[in-house]
Amino acid sequence: MEQPTETRQRYAYFLQIPTRWMDNDIYGHVNNVQYYAFFDTVIGDYLIRHGGLDIVNDAVVGFAVESLCQYRRAIAFPELVEAGLRVARIGNSSVRYEIGIFTAGYDAPAATGYFVHVFVDRTHGNRPTTVPDKLRAALAKLFMVSR
Amino acid sequence: MEQPTETRQRYAYFLQIPTRWMDNDIYGHVNNVQYYAFFDTVIGDYLIRHGGLDIVNDAVVGFAVESLCQYRRAIAFPELVEAGLRVARIGNSSVRYEIGIFTAGYDAPAATGYFVHVFVDRTHGNRPTTVPDKLRAALAKLFMVSR
Amino acid sequence: MEQPTETRQRYAYFLQIPTRWMDNDIYGHVNNVQYYAFFDTVIGDYLIRHGGLDIVNDAVVGFAVESLCQYRRAIAFPELVEAGLRVARIGNSSVRYEIGIFTAGYDAPAATGYFVHVFVDRTHGNRPTTVPDKLRAALAKLFMVSR
Amino acid sequence: MEQPTETRQRYAYFLQIPTRWMDNDIYGHVNNVQYYAFFDTVIGDYLIRHGGLDIVNDAVVGFAVESLCQYRRAIAFPELVEAGLRVARIGNSSVRYEIGIFTAGYDAPAATGYFVHVFVDRTHGNRPTTVPDKLRAALAKLFMVSR
Repeated sequence: MEQPTETRQRYAYFLQIPTRWMDNDIYGHVNNVQYYAFFDTVIGDYLIRHGGLDIVNDAVVGFAVESLCQYRRAIAFPELVEAGLRVARIGNSSVRYEIGIFTAGYDAPAATGYFVHVFVDRTHGNRPTTVPDKLRAALAKLFMVSR
Repeated sequence: MEQPTETRQRYAYFLQIPTRWMDNDIYGHVNNVQYYAFFDTVIGDYLIRHGGLDIVNDAVVGFAVESLCQYRRAIAFPELVEAGLRVARIGNSSVRYEIGIFTAGYDAPAATGYFVHVFVDRTHGNRPTTVPDKLRAALAKLFMVSR
Repeated sequence: MEQPTETRQRYAYFLQIPTRWMDNDIYGHVNNVQYYAFFDTVIGDYLIRHGGLDIVNDAVVGFAVESLCQYRRAIAFPELVEAGLRVARIGNSSVRYEIGIFTAGYDAPAATGYFVHVFVDRTHGNRPTTVPDKLRAALAKLFMVSR
Repeated sequence: MEQPTETRQRYAYFLQIPTRWMDNDIYGHVNNVQYYAFFDTVIGDYLIRHGGLDIVNDAVVGFAVESLCQYRRAIAFPELVEAGLRVARIGNSSVRYEIGIFTAGYDAPAATGYFVHVFVDRTHGNRPTTVPDKLRAALAKLFMVSR
């Protein structure tokens, strides 16, 4: 599970996500669950704003098939999260995203992880289908080799 | 805002909702926000299971227009919440629900509140519309006069 | 329940809160519950950043006693929420906050509501106590008369 | 990442967790993030109820260091989740839990994953420390070999 240190330079797109009061759990830190909300927020934000994904009307949408997070340093409200995103693999119907969770004052991420989408056609029983061209073009811009 | 004490007898339908780890906030109690999740969960559960509401396919669905909660006693994970529901008013297009949040060992609620739905037609620009008959019949069974 | 129209000018402090993917519910809008997360986030942010509240170490902290929200216009991810805050009443141990939830392109709020804190001493069985001077001074700066 | 099919028999402790209205996201299924709330809820429930963990007063508590989820079948509100838990490894200061998320009518899990705790001493700068005996004894009862 050892990995070379990740820095902001290893990510291609960033979204600022302020923490919320209730992200903190009883131990006074952002709860482990919320990191995955940061993951799918930066991914969804990119697909909608830069890939033209229409989550209401598009027939083809991404479903989560696997995600992972390694927690390295605690975060606490009201810290501001900077979620960094890169794309590590674009297959026929699936995409692997890698995410770094950064906070002010640190080069090293507070957490790193990945998230895998499979694209499905909602009008055909959620059957896996090719990543739509508009998304594929947008995702290609975030492609960086994983170490 | 003083009210006579509410007890379980003042509610017509109950749903058990176990608290979750992350419901607790930094002060060690279920965060104020989560009570509203208990509210719309007991309401949605009743409408789906007992009123035949189909949240995927029905054209007419309920949108929240107002909600309120009075917090009376703290709850903490892993306590089990018993959410009590009654219907206080059924109008042409709106319904006022009243909710009591109970926990084991207490007659008095940990919190009380209300929630108002207006029913809208998703196929007509979310315009307010008559409460569908199947829901009206189910909701009538929970009608109890507010004190 | 009719109120004169609220605008941004009626609020004294603002916090930008980007919506998150999972704020959207099945109807494609930010779920009613999340508005209360916006409420306690702007309040907590102000108390910590401008009032010196130390949520880990301070003996005196605010507990929610009542909250309300009126929903006026739907919001959807990835819209950016601007949460406006004012203080409508500072009592001996309690504070009433009023919140307006705004989004880009609209003068009228998407939602308005209030939130009441009672300050308690955690070292004395959570007994209500005077609002600490450092918080009282900070809150006074946000005081605006409710209409 | 292929694994032999997991069934309820492969888990040692179960907690019923009803889904909540807002667990559903815009696609009409429980959002990927919420599965991790099921994970840390079944773990926390077991540690508190069966291991005597006191999350308010104990100096030694578990911090998340890594978690993963593989999503196999969509779940939707108001389905009832049965979260199955086993312990796959108990080290000096860390514990690896494996979780299966089941729903009525299916032998195969809707999702499977793991969660790793490192136990830290809050009174010594959150330094990693030995798993407390009371927890170790309780966790040993859930030990099952991973396939």
